[in-house]
Amino acid sequence: MNELATAKRCAEKMWGSDSASKALGIAIDIREVGAATARMQIREDMVNGFDVCHGGLLFALADTAFAFACNAYDRVTVAGSASIEFLRPAKRGDVLIAEATEDYRGRRSGYYTVRIKNQDGEAVALFRGRCVSRDEPVVDD
Amino acid sequence: MNELATAKRCAEKMWGSDSASKALGIAIDIREVGAATARMQIREDMVNGFDVCHGGLLFALADTAFAFACNAYDRVTVAGSASIEFLRPAKRGDVLIAEATEDYRGRRSGYYTVRIKNQDGEAVALFRGRCVSRDEPVVDD
Amino acid sequence: MNELATAKRCAEKMWGSDSASKALGIAIDIREVGAATARMQIREDMVNGFDVCHGGLLFALADTAFAFACNAYDRVTVAGSASIEFLRPAKRGDVLIAEATEDYRGRRSGYYTVRIKNQDGEAVALFRGRCVSRDEPVVDD
Amino acid sequence: MNELATAKRCAEKMWGSDSASKALGIAIDIREVGAATARMQIREDMVNGFDVCHGGLLFALADTAFAFACNAYDRVTVAGSASIEFLRPAKRGDVLIAEATEDYRGRRSGYYTVRIKNQDGEAVALFRGRCVSRDEPVVDD
Repeated sequence: MNELATAKRCAEKMWGSDSASKALGIAIDIREVGAATARMQIREDMVNGFDVCHGGLLFALADTAFAFACNAYDRVTVAGSASIEFLRPAKRGDVLIAEATEDYRGRRSGYYTVRIKNQDGEAVALFRGRCVSRDEPVVDD
Repeated sequence: MNELATAKRCAEKMWGSDSASKALGIAIDIREVGAATARMQIREDMVNGFDVCHGGLLFALADTAFAFACNAYDRVTVAGSASIEFLRPAKRGDVLIAEATEDYRGRRSGYYTVRIKNQDGEAVALFRGRCVSRDEPVVDD
Repeated sequence: MNELATAKRCAEKMWGSDSASKALGIAIDIREVGAATARMQIREDMVNGFDVCHGGLLFALADTAFAFACNAYDRVTVAGSASIEFLRPAKRGDVLIAEATEDYRGRRSGYYTVRIKNQDGEAVALFRGRCVSRDEPVVDD
Repeated sequence: MNELATAKRCAEKMWGSDSASKALGIAIDIREVGAATARMQIREDMVNGFDVCHGGLLFALADTAFAFACNAYDRVTVAGSASIEFLRPAKRGDVLIAEATEDYRGRRSGYYTVRIKNQDGEAVALFRGRCVSRDEPVVDD
Protein backbone atom coordinates (compact mmCIF):
# COMPACT_ATOMS: atom_id res chain seq x y z
CA MET A 1 0.00 0.00 0.00
CA ASN A 2 2.79 2.32 1.03
CA GLU A 3 4.75 1.21 -2.01
CA LEU A 4 1.86 2.01 -4.30
CA ALA A 5 1.65 5.47 -2.73
CA THR A 6 5.35 5.96 -3.49
CA ALA A 7 4.86 4.79 -7.06
CA LYS A 8 2.01 7.28 -7.51
CA ARG A 9 4.03 10.13 -6.04
CA CYS A 10 6.91 9.38 -8.42
CA ALA A 11 4.48 9.36 -11.32
CA GLU A 12 2.99 12.71 -10.29
CA LYS A 13 6.44 14.22 -9.95
CA MET A 14 7.50 13.02 -13.40
CA TRP A 15 4.22 13.95 -15.02
CA GLY A 16 4.51 17.53 -13.78
CA SER A 17 7.37 18.26 -16.19
CA ASP A 18 6.70 15.71 -18.92
CA SER A 19 5.89 18.12 -21.74
CA ALA A 20 6.41 15.48 -24.41
CA SER A 21 3.83 13.00 -23.10
CA LYS A 22 1.36 15.85 -22.56
CA ALA A 23 1.90 17.12 -26.10
CA LEU A 24 1.07 13.63 -27.37
CA GLY A 25 -2.20 13.69 -25.40
CA ILE A 26 -1.15 10.70 -23.32
CA ALA A 27 -2.95 9.88 -20.06
CA ILE A 28 -1.18 7.77 -17.42
CA ASP A 29 -2.65 5.50 -14.78
CA ILE A 30 -0.74 3.73 -11.99
CA ARG A 31 -2.62 0.93 -10.26
CA GLU A 32 0.23 -1.34 -9.30
CA VAL A 33 3.90 -0.97 -8.36
CA GLY A 34 6.16 -1.61 -11.37
CA ALA A 35 3.29 -1.33 -13.83
CA ALA A 36 1.62 1.52 -15.72
CA THR A 37 -1.11 2.09 -18.27
CA ALA A 38 -0.83 4.81 -20.91
CA ARG A 39 -3.66 5.85 -23.23
CA MET A 40 -3.37 7.87 -26.44
CA GLN A 41 -5.74 8.70 -29.28
CA ILE A 42 -4.28 8.83 -32.79
CA ARG A 43 -4.66 12.38 -34.02
CA GLU A 44 -4.52 13.85 -37.50
CA ASP A 45 -0.93 14.96 -36.90
CA MET A 46 0.19 11.45 -35.88
CA VAL A 47 -0.24 9.63 -39.19
CA ASN A 48 2.60 9.05 -41.62
CA GLY A 49 2.96 8.92 -45.40
CA PHE A 50 1.00 5.66 -45.58
CA ASP A 51 -1.93 7.10 -43.62
CA VAL A 52 -1.39 4.98 -40.48
CA CYS A 53 0.01 5.99 -37.12
CA HIS A 54 3.75 6.82 -37.30
CA GLY A 55 5.65 3.91 -35.72
CA GLY A 56 7.67 6.37 -33.70
CA LEU A 57 4.55 7.57 -31.93
CA LEU A 58 3.46 4.02 -31.11
CA PHE A 59 6.93 3.59 -29.64
CA ALA A 60 6.58 6.89 -27.75
CA LEU A 61 3.32 5.70 -26.18
CA ALA A 62 4.89 2.42 -25.06
CA ASP A 63 8.05 4.19 -23.89
CA THR A 64 5.95 6.50 -21.71
CA ALA A 65 4.18 3.55 -20.06
CA PHE A 66 7.60 1.93 -19.56
CA ALA A 67 9.11 5.06 -17.99
CA PHE A 68 6.26 5.40 -15.51
CA ALA A 69 6.35 1.70 -14.64
CA CYS A 70 10.09 1.57 -13.96
CA ASN A 71 10.23 4.80 -11.94
CA ALA A 72 7.93 3.42 -9.24
CA TYR A 73 10.68 2.86 -6.69
CA ASP A 74 11.78 6.44 -6.14
CA ARG A 75 15.10 6.03 -7.90
CA VAL A 76 15.68 7.96 -11.11
CA THR A 77 15.51 5.31 -13.81
CA VAL A 78 16.21 5.85 -17.49
CA ALA A 79 15.81 3.70 -20.59
CA GLY A 80 18.96 1.95 -21.75
CA SER A 81 17.48 0.27 -24.80
CA ALA A 82 14.15 -0.86 -26.17
CA SER A 83 12.66 -2.79 -29.05
CA ILE A 84 9.25 -2.90 -30.67
CA GLU A 85 7.42 -5.40 -32.87
CA PHE A 86 4.73 -3.84 -35.03
CA LEU A 87 1.80 -6.25 -35.17
CA ARG A 88 -1.03 -4.28 -36.75
CA PRO A 89 -1.35 -0.69 -38.03
CA ALA A 90 -3.19 1.89 -35.93
CA LYS A 91 -5.43 4.39 -37.67
CA ARG A 92 -6.41 7.97 -37.06
CA GLY A 93 -9.04 8.09 -34.32
CA ASP A 94 -7.97 4.80 -32.75
CA VAL A 95 -7.68 4.85 -28.98
CA LEU A 96 -4.63 2.89 -27.90
CA ILE A 97 -3.90 1.43 -24.50
CA ALA A 98 -0.33 0.52 -23.53
CA GLU A 99 0.10 -1.78 -20.53
CA ALA A 100 3.59 -1.93 -19.04
CA THR A 101 4.52 -4.82 -16.76
CA GLU A 102 7.76 -5.81 -15.08
CA ASP A 103 9.62 -8.88 -16.31
CA TYR A 104 12.61 -8.72 -14.04
CA ARG A 105 14.19 -6.16 -11.75
CA GLY A 106 17.79 -6.51 -10.70
CA ARG A 107 19.94 -4.28 -8.53
CA ARG A 108 20.42 -1.62 -11.19
CA SER A 109 18.75 -2.93 -14.33
CA GLY A 110 15.07 -3.57 -15.00
CA TYR A 111 13.24 -5.28 -17.88
CA TYR A 112 9.68 -4.47 -18.89
CA THR A 113 7.16 -5.54 -21.52
CA VAL A 114 4.58 -3.13 -22.91
CA ARG A 115 1.62 -4.37 -24.93
CA ILE A 116 -0.29 -1.86 -27.04
CA LYS A 117 -3.88 -2.71 -27.94
CA ASN A 118 -6.52 -0.74 -29.81
CA GLN A 119 -10.11 0.01 -28.73
CA ASP A 120 -11.20 -3.41 -30.05
CA GLY A 121 -8.64 -5.20 -27.92
CA GLU A 122 -6.51 -6.12 -30.93
CA ALA A 123 -2.73 -6.31 -30.44
CA VAL A 124 -0.99 -3.37 -32.14
CA ALA A 125 2.58 -3.61 -30.85
CA LEU A 126 4.82 -5.48 -28.44
CA PHE A 127 7.54 -3.41 -26.77
CA ARG A 128 10.42 -4.45 -24.52
CA GLY A 129 12.47 -2.01 -22.51
CA ARG A 130 15.62 -2.22 -20.43
CA CYS A 131 16.28 0.50 -17.88
CA VAL A 132 19.06 1.54 -15.55
CA SER A 133 18.56 3.09 -12.09
CA ARG A 134 20.69 5.74 -10.44
CA ASP A 135 21.18 6.41 -6.74
CA GLU A 136 19.02 9.48 -6.92
CA PRO A 137 15.43 9.90 -5.72
CA VAL A 138 12.62 10.81 -8.15
CA VAL A 139 10.74 12.73 -5.46
CA ASP A 140 12.90 15.20 -3.57
CA ASP A 141 11.32 16.41 -0.38
CA MET B 1 21.15 8.14 -61.38
CA ASN B 2 17.76 6.92 -62.45
CA GLU B 3 17.51 4.94 -59.23
CA LEU B 4 18.27 8.01 -57.17
CA ALA B 5 15.56 9.90 -59.04
CA THR B 6 13.11 7.11 -58.16
CA ALA B 7 14.18 7.21 -54.52
CA LYS B 8 13.63 10.97 -54.43
CA ARG B 9 10.19 10.66 -56.03
CA CYS B 10 9.15 8.05 -53.48
CA ALA B 11 10.34 10.33 -50.69
CA GLU B 12 8.39 13.29 -52.09
CA LYS B 13 5.26 11.18 -52.39
CA MET B 14 5.53 9.94 -48.80
CA TRP B 15 6.45 13.33 -47.44
CA GLY B 16 3.34 14.89 -48.95
CA SER B 17 1.08 13.09 -46.50
CA ASP B 18 3.44 12.52 -43.59
CA SER B 19 1.71 14.73 -41.03
CA ALA B 20 3.54 13.12 -38.12
CA SER B 21 7.07 13.85 -39.33
CA LYS B 22 6.04 17.39 -40.25
CA ALA B 23 4.51 17.93 -36.80
CA LEU B 24 7.83 16.88 -35.27
CA GLY B 25 9.62 19.49 -37.39
CA ILE B 26 11.67 16.82 -39.16
CA ALA B 27 13.49 17.61 -42.42
CA ILE B 28 14.43 14.77 -44.78
CA ASP B 29 17.26 14.56 -47.27
CA ILE B 30 17.86 11.77 -49.80
CA ARG B 31 21.30 11.69 -51.35
CA GLU B 32 21.71 8.00 -51.98
CA VAL B 33 19.48 5.04 -52.78
CA GLY B 34 18.65 3.06 -49.64
CA ALA B 35 19.83 5.82 -47.34
CA ALA B 36 18.26 8.92 -45.79
CA THR B 37 19.13 11.73 -43.42
CA ALA B 38 16.56 13.19 -41.01
CA ARG B 39 17.10 16.32 -38.95
CA MET B 40 15.10 17.45 -35.91
CA GLN B 41 15.55 20.13 -33.28
CA ILE B 42 14.48 19.26 -29.72
CA ARG B 43 11.64 21.59 -28.83
CA GLU B 44 10.19 22.56 -25.49
CA ASP B 45 7.33 20.10 -26.01
CA MET B 46 9.72 17.20 -26.66
CA VAL B 47 11.32 16.87 -23.23
CA ASN B 48 10.17 14.38 -20.61
CA GLY B 49 9.90 14.36 -16.82
CA PHE B 50 13.70 14.26 -16.47
CA ASP B 51 14.15 17.31 -18.68
CA VAL B 52 15.79 15.45 -21.58
CA CYS B 53 14.35 14.52 -24.97
CA HIS B 54 11.63 11.85 -24.68
CA GLY B 55 13.11 8.57 -25.90
CA GLY B 56 10.05 8.01 -28.02
CA LEU B 57 10.82 11.11 -30.05
CA LEU B 58 14.43 10.05 -30.60
CA PHE B 59 12.99 6.78 -31.86
CA ALA B 60 10.50 8.68 -34.05
CA LEU B 61 13.32 10.64 -35.67
CA ALA B 62 15.28 7.45 -36.42
CA ASP B 63 12.15 5.67 -37.58
CA THR B 64 11.45 8.47 -40.05
CA ALA B 65 14.97 8.23 -41.51
CA PHE B 66 14.51 4.45 -41.71
CA ALA B 67 11.14 4.73 -43.48
CA PHE B 68 12.51 7.08 -46.12
CA ALA B 69 15.62 4.94 -46.64
CA CYS B 70 13.74 1.69 -47.12
CA ASN B 71 11.04 3.11 -49.42
CA ALA B 72 13.57 4.07 -52.09
CA TYR B 73 12.69 1.24 -54.45
CA ASP B 74 9.11 2.21 -55.26
CA ARG B 75 7.58 -0.66 -53.32
CA VAL B 76 5.49 0.16 -50.28
CA THR B 77 7.68 -0.90 -47.36
CA VAL B 78 6.65 -0.87 -43.70
CA ALA B 79 8.53 -1.41 -40.46
CA GLY B 80 8.25 -4.90 -38.99
CA SER B 81 10.31 -4.28 -35.90
CA ALA B 82 12.99 -1.97 -34.58
CA SER B 83 15.28 -1.50 -31.63
CA ILE B 84 17.14 1.44 -30.16
CA GLU B 85 20.12 1.83 -27.84
CA PHE B 86 20.16 5.13 -25.96
CA LEU B 87 23.77 6.30 -25.76
CA ARG B 88 23.57 9.88 -24.48
CA PRO B 89 20.67 12.17 -23.53
CA ALA B 90 19.58 14.91 -25.93
CA LYS B 91 18.60 18.28 -24.53
CA ARG B 92 16.17 20.97 -25.50
CA GLY B 93 17.61 23.02 -28.34
CA ASP B 94 19.86 20.22 -29.57
CA VAL B 95 19.83 19.67 -33.31
CA LEU B 96 19.89 15.97 -34.08
CA ILE B 97 20.89 14.28 -37.31
CA ALA B 98 19.78 10.71 -38.01
CA GLU B 99 21.63 8.87 -40.79
CA ALA B 100 19.93 5.71 -42.08
CA THR B 101 21.97 3.19 -44.05
CA GLU B 102 21.14 -0.22 -45.50
CA ASP B 103 22.67 -3.32 -43.90
CA TYR B 104 20.99 -5.95 -46.04
CA ARG B 105 18.12 -6.10 -48.45
CA GLY B 106 16.49 -9.41 -49.29
CA ARG B 107 13.59 -10.22 -51.55
CA ARG B 108 10.95 -8.94 -49.12
CA SER B 109 12.82 -7.98 -45.96
CA GLY B 110 15.31 -5.18 -45.41
CA TYR B 111 17.59 -4.29 -42.49
CA TYR B 112 18.80 -0.79 -41.72
CA THR B 113 20.92 0.99 -39.13
CA VAL B 114 20.22 4.56 -38.08
CA ARG B 115 22.79 6.58 -36.11
CA ILE B 116 21.59 9.69 -34.31
CA LYS B 117 24.19 12.34 -33.51
CA ASN B 118 23.87 15.78 -31.95
CA GLN B 119 25.24 19.10 -33.27
CA ASP B 120 28.63 18.32 -31.70
CA GLY B 121 28.86 15.02 -33.54
CA GLU B 122 28.34 12.99 -30.37
CA ALA B 123 26.48 9.68 -30.67
CA VAL B 124 22.99 9.93 -29.15
CA ALA B 125 21.32 6.68 -30.24
CA LEU B 126 21.81 3.59 -32.37
CA PHE B 127 18.67 2.28 -34.07
CA ARG B 128 18.11 -0.90 -36.10
CA GLY B 129 15.03 -1.50 -38.21
CA ARG B 130 13.62 -4.45 -40.09
CA CYS B 131 11.10 -3.76 -42.84
CA VAL B 132 8.83 -5.74 -45.12
CA SER B 133 7.98 -4.79 -48.72
CA ARG B 134 4.69 -5.30 -50.49
CA ASP B 135 4.03 -5.69 -54.22
CA GLU B 136 2.61 -2.19 -54.41
CA PRO B 137 4.26 0.95 -55.81
CA VAL B 138 4.87 4.00 -53.61
CA VAL B 139 4.41 6.38 -56.52
CA ASP B 140 1.29 5.69 -58.55
CA ASP B 141 1.27 7.41 -61.89
CA MET C 1 -6.67 -32.11 -25.40
CA ASN C 2 -6.44 -32.96 -29.07
CA GLU C 3 -4.39 -29.85 -29.60
CA LEU C 4 -1.96 -30.86 -26.92
CA ALA C 5 -1.62 -34.27 -28.58
CA THR C 6 -0.78 -32.50 -31.87
CA ALA C 7 1.77 -30.32 -30.12
CA LYS C 8 3.42 -33.38 -28.61
CA ARG C 9 3.52 -35.21 -31.94
CA CYS C 10 5.17 -32.20 -33.59
CA ALA C 11 7.73 -32.11 -30.80
CA GLU C 12 8.49 -35.81 -31.19
CA LYS C 13 8.87 -35.45 -34.93
CA MET C 14 11.28 -32.52 -34.57
CA TRP C 15 13.20 -34.12 -31.74
CA GLY C 16 13.87 -37.20 -33.82
CA SER C 17 16.27 -35.35 -36.08
CA ASP C 18 17.42 -32.54 -33.79
CA SER C 19 21.08 -33.53 -33.50
CA ALA C 20 22.10 -30.11 -32.20
CA SER C 21 19.79 -30.07 -29.17
CA LYS C 22 20.75 -33.66 -28.37
CA ALA C 23 24.45 -32.83 -28.60
CA LEU C 24 23.88 -30.05 -26.07
CA GLY C 25 22.24 -32.54 -23.71
CA ILE C 26 18.95 -30.67 -23.78
CA ALA C 27 15.74 -32.33 -22.60
CA ILE C 28 12.38 -31.02 -23.82
CA ASP C 29 8.99 -31.16 -22.14
CA ILE C 30 5.66 -30.09 -23.67
CA ARG C 31 2.81 -29.64 -21.20
CA GLU C 32 0.81 -26.95 -22.93
CA VAL C 33 0.11 -25.86 -26.51
CA GLY C 34 2.38 -22.96 -27.53
CA ALA C 35 4.72 -23.51 -24.59
CA ALA C 36 7.78 -25.65 -23.94
CA THR C 37 10.34 -26.31 -21.23
CA ALA C 38 13.96 -27.09 -22.06
CA ARG C 39 16.54 -28.26 -19.52
CA MET C 40 20.33 -28.25 -19.91
CA GLN C 41 23.25 -28.81 -17.57
CA ILE C 42 26.36 -26.66 -18.12
CA ARG C 43 29.17 -29.02 -19.05
CA GLU C 44 32.92 -28.55 -19.01
CA ASP C 45 32.86 -27.90 -22.78
CA MET C 46 30.25 -25.13 -22.47
CA VAL C 47 32.26 -22.53 -20.57
CA ASN C 48 34.05 -19.64 -22.24
CA GLY C 49 37.27 -17.73 -21.65
CA PHE C 50 35.87 -16.14 -18.48
CA ASP C 51 34.91 -19.50 -16.98
CA VAL C 52 31.14 -19.00 -17.26
CA CYS C 53 28.67 -20.55 -19.67
CA HIS C 54 29.17 -19.27 -23.24
CA GLY C 55 26.34 -16.83 -24.00
CA GLY C 56 25.75 -18.58 -27.28
CA LEU C 57 24.84 -21.77 -25.47
CA LEU C 58 22.41 -19.97 -23.17
CA PHE C 59 20.87 -18.60 -26.34
CA ALA C 60 20.83 -22.09 -27.89
CA LEU C 61 18.94 -23.46 -24.88
CA ALA C 62 16.33 -20.68 -25.09
CA ASP C 63 16.13 -21.00 -28.86
CA THR C 64 15.37 -24.71 -28.53
CA ALA C 65 12.54 -24.06 -26.08
CA PHE C 66 11.24 -21.38 -28.47
CA ALA C 67 11.38 -23.70 -31.50
CA PHE C 68 9.42 -26.43 -29.71
CA ALA C 69 6.85 -23.94 -28.39
CA CYS C 70 6.14 -22.32 -31.75
CA ASN C 71 5.95 -25.58 -33.72
CA ALA C 72 2.95 -26.82 -31.73
CA TYR C 73 0.42 -26.16 -34.46
CA ASP C 74 1.66 -28.61 -37.07
CA ARG C 75 2.95 -25.91 -39.41
CA VAL C 76 6.67 -25.69 -40.03
CA THR C 77 7.74 -22.59 -38.14
CA VAL C 78 11.21 -21.05 -38.15
CA ALA C 79 12.87 -18.29 -36.18
CA GLY C 80 12.96 -14.91 -37.91
CA SER C 81 14.83 -13.04 -35.21
CA ALA C 82 15.54 -13.20 -31.51
CA SER C 83 17.14 -11.23 -28.72
CA ILE C 84 18.55 -12.10 -25.34
CA GLU C 85 19.28 -10.16 -22.18
CA PHE C 86 21.98 -11.71 -20.01
CA LEU C 87 20.96 -11.25 -16.37
CA ARG C 88 23.35 -13.42 -14.40
CA PRO C 89 26.22 -15.74 -15.38
CA ALA C 90 25.69 -19.50 -15.35
CA LYS C 91 28.48 -21.73 -14.09
CA ARG C 92 29.69 -25.19 -14.93
CA GLY C 93 27.42 -27.75 -13.29
CA ASP C 94 24.42 -25.42 -13.16
CA VAL C 95 21.15 -26.96 -14.28
CA LEU C 96 19.21 -24.46 -16.34
CA ILE C 97 15.51 -24.47 -17.11
CA ALA C 98 14.16 -22.45 -20.05
CA GLU C 99 10.41 -21.81 -20.09
CA ALA C 100 8.97 -20.64 -23.43
CA THR C 101 5.56 -18.98 -23.51
CA GLU C 102 3.55 -17.38 -26.28
CA ASP C 103 3.09 -13.60 -26.29
CA TYR C 104 1.14 -13.25 -29.50
CA ARG C 105 0.38 -15.40 -32.49
CA GLY C 106 -0.77 -13.84 -35.74
CA ARG C 107 -1.63 -15.41 -39.06
CA ARG C 108 1.99 -16.08 -40.02
CA SER C 109 4.11 -14.53 -37.28
CA GLY C 110 4.45 -15.53 -33.65
CA TYR C 111 6.17 -13.89 -30.67
CA TYR C 112 7.50 -15.80 -27.68
CA THR C 113 9.31 -15.09 -24.43
CA VAL C 114 11.74 -17.57 -22.90
CA ARG C 115 12.94 -17.20 -19.32
CA ILE C 116 16.04 -19.11 -18.27
CA LYS C 117 16.49 -19.83 -14.57
CA ASN C 118 19.12 -21.79 -12.69
CA GLN C 119 18.61 -24.57 -10.11
CA ASP C 120 18.11 -21.95 -7.39
CA GLY C 121 15.33 -20.27 -9.33
CA GLU C 122 17.47 -17.23 -10.12
CA ALA C 123 16.89 -15.46 -13.43
CA VAL C 124 19.77 -16.11 -15.86
CA ALA C 125 18.47 -14.75 -19.16
CA LEU C 126 15.42 -13.28 -20.86
CA PHE C 127 14.93 -14.26 -24.49
CA ARG C 128 12.40 -13.03 -27.06
CA GLY C 129 11.80 -14.74 -30.37
CA ARG C 130 9.84 -13.93 -33.50
CA CYS C 131 8.93 -16.80 -35.82
CA VAL C 132 7.36 -17.24 -39.22
CA SER C 133 5.10 -20.16 -40.21
CA ARG C 134 4.93 -21.85 -43.60
CA ASP C 135 2.01 -23.73 -45.16
CA GLU C 136 3.69 -27.04 -44.54
CA PRO C 137 2.92 -29.62 -41.86
CA VAL C 138 5.53 -30.63 -39.26
CA VAL C 139 4.17 -34.16 -39.05
CA ASP C 140 3.71 -35.83 -42.43
CA ASP C 141 1.52 -38.89 -42.26
CA MET D 1 50.46 -1.22 -33.59
CA ASN D 2 50.91 -1.59 -29.87
CA GLU D 3 47.14 -1.62 -29.49
CA LEU D 4 46.83 -4.45 -31.96
CA ALA D 5 49.43 -6.40 -29.98
CA THR D 6 47.33 -5.88 -26.84
CA ALA D 7 44.21 -7.01 -28.64
CA LYS D 8 45.97 -10.17 -29.80
CA ARG D 9 47.28 -10.91 -26.32
CA CYS D 10 43.79 -10.56 -24.85
CA ALA D 11 42.45 -12.91 -27.51
CA GLU D 12 45.13 -15.49 -26.77
CA LYS D 13 44.44 -15.30 -23.07
CA MET D 14 40.69 -15.78 -23.56
CA TRP D 15 41.14 -18.50 -26.15
CA GLY D 16 43.27 -20.54 -23.76
CA SER D 17 40.30 -21.34 -21.55
CA ASP D 18 37.44 -21.01 -24.04
CA SER D 19 36.31 -24.64 -24.07
CA ALA D 20 32.95 -23.79 -25.61
CA SER D 21 34.31 -22.10 -28.74
CA LYS D 22 36.85 -24.89 -29.17
CA ALA D 23 34.15 -27.55 -28.83
CA LEU D 24 32.24 -25.79 -31.62
CA GLY D 25 35.33 -25.97 -33.84
CA ILE D 26 35.53 -22.19 -34.08
CA ALA D 27 38.74 -20.49 -35.28
CA ILE D 28 39.40 -16.86 -34.35
CA ASP D 29 41.42 -14.22 -36.16
CA ILE D 30 42.25 -10.72 -34.90
CA ARG D 31 43.52 -8.31 -37.53
CA GLU D 32 42.24 -5.04 -36.15
CA VAL D 33 41.52 -3.54 -32.73
CA GLY D 34 37.82 -3.82 -31.86
CA ALA D 35 37.16 -6.33 -34.62
CA ALA D 36 37.34 -10.11 -34.92
CA THR D 37 36.65 -12.86 -37.43
CA ALA D 38 35.30 -16.24 -36.37
CA ARG D 39 35.02 -19.26 -38.66
CA MET D 40 32.95 -22.40 -38.08
CA GLN D 41 31.96 -25.36 -40.23
CA ILE D 42 28.44 -26.76 -39.71
CA ARG D 43 28.85 -30.31 -38.44
CA GLU D 44 26.44 -33.21 -38.34
CA ASP D 45 25.74 -32.49 -34.65
CA MET D 46 24.84 -28.85 -35.34
CA VAL D 47 21.66 -29.31 -37.36
CA ASN D 48 18.19 -29.10 -35.87
CA GLY D 49 14.87 -30.84 -36.48
CA PHE D 50 14.44 -29.09 -39.85
CA ASP D 51 17.87 -30.23 -41.06
CA VAL D 52 19.46 -26.77 -41.03
CA CYS D 53 21.98 -25.30 -38.61
CA HIS D 54 20.48 -24.72 -35.15
CA GLY D 55 19.91 -20.98 -34.75
CA GLY D 56 21.53 -21.12 -31.35
CA LEU D 57 24.81 -22.23 -32.91
CA LEU D 58 24.72 -19.43 -35.47
CA PHE D 59 24.25 -17.11 -32.52
CA ALA D 60 27.11 -18.81 -30.68
CA LEU D 61 29.43 -18.22 -33.63
CA ALA D 62 28.50 -14.52 -33.80
CA ASP D 63 28.70 -14.19 -30.03
CA THR D 64 32.23 -15.58 -30.07
CA ALA D 65 33.34 -13.06 -32.70
CA PHE D 66 31.67 -10.33 -30.62
CA ALA D 67 33.41 -11.42 -27.40
CA PHE D 68 36.84 -11.39 -29.03
CA ALA D 69 36.20 -8.02 -30.69
CA CYS D 70 35.06 -6.26 -27.53
CA ASN D 71 37.81 -7.66 -25.28
CA ALA D 72 40.55 -5.99 -27.30
CA TYR D 73 41.25 -3.26 -24.77
CA ASP D 74 42.49 -5.39 -21.88
CA ARG D 75 39.43 -4.80 -19.74
CA VAL D 76 37.20 -7.76 -18.96
CA THR D 77 34.11 -7.16 -21.07
CA VAL D 78 30.95 -9.26 -21.02
CA ALA D 79 27.82 -9.35 -23.16
CA GLY D 80 24.85 -7.47 -21.73
CA SER D 81 22.41 -8.28 -24.49
CA ALA D 82 22.35 -9.29 -28.13
CA SER D 83 19.96 -9.82 -30.99
CA ILE D 84 20.08 -11.78 -34.21
CA GLU D 85 18.21 -11.61 -37.51
CA PHE D 86 18.17 -14.90 -39.39
CA LEU D 87 18.51 -14.13 -43.10
CA ARG D 88 19.14 -17.49 -44.76
CA PRO D 89 19.48 -21.06 -43.44
CA ALA D 90 22.93 -22.62 -43.13
CA LYS D 91 23.36 -26.28 -44.04
CA ARG D 92 25.56 -29.08 -42.86
CA GLY D 93 29.02 -28.68 -44.37
CA ASP D 94 28.69 -24.93 -44.86
CA VAL D 95 31.68 -22.91 -43.75
CA LEU D 96 30.55 -19.75 -42.03
CA ILE D 97 32.52 -16.58 -41.45
CA ALA D 98 31.41 -14.10 -38.77
CA GLU D 99 32.89 -10.60 -38.96
CA ALA D 100 32.52 -8.47 -35.82
CA THR D 101 32.98 -4.71 -36.06
CA GLU D 102 32.58 -1.90 -33.55
CA ASP D 103 29.65 0.49 -33.88
CA TYR D 104 30.25 2.60 -30.81
CA ARG D 105 32.32 2.36 -27.68
CA GLY D 106 31.48 4.44 -24.65
CA ARG D 107 33.11 4.60 -21.25
CA ARG D 108 31.67 1.29 -20.07
CA SER D 109 29.33 0.10 -22.82
CA GLY D 110 30.17 -1.04 -26.32
CA TYR D 111 28.02 -1.87 -29.36
CA TYR D 112 29.05 -4.27 -32.10
CA THR D 113 27.63 -5.70 -35.31
CA VAL D 114 28.47 -9.19 -36.49
CA ARG D 115 27.68 -10.33 -40.03
CA ILE D 116 27.66 -14.05 -40.75
CA LYS D 117 28.20 -15.14 -44.34
CA ASN D 118 28.53 -18.56 -45.91
CA GLN D 119 31.27 -19.87 -48.24
CA ASP D 120 29.46 -18.30 -51.20
CA GLY D 121 29.45 -14.88 -49.56
CA GLU D 122 25.71 -14.99 -48.95
CA ALA D 123 24.38 -13.24 -45.83
CA VAL D 124 23.24 -15.78 -43.23
CA ALA D 125 22.64 -13.67 -40.12
CA LEU D 126 22.97 -10.16 -38.73
CA PHE D 127 23.89 -9.96 -35.04
CA ARG D 128 24.10 -6.95 -32.72
CA GLY D 129 25.69 -7.08 -29.30
CA ARG D 130 25.94 -4.72 -26.36
CA CYS D 131 28.72 -5.28 -23.85
CA VAL D 132 29.78 -3.90 -20.49
CA SER D 133 33.40 -3.48 -19.35
CA ARG D 134 34.74 -3.94 -15.85
CA ASP D 135 37.80 -2.35 -14.26
CA GLU D 136 39.71 -5.60 -14.51
CA PRO D 137 42.43 -6.56 -16.98
CA VAL D 138 41.99 -9.52 -19.34
CA VAL D 139 45.69 -10.29 -19.31
CA ASP D 140 47.17 -10.45 -15.82
CA ASP D 141 50.91 -10.36 -15.80
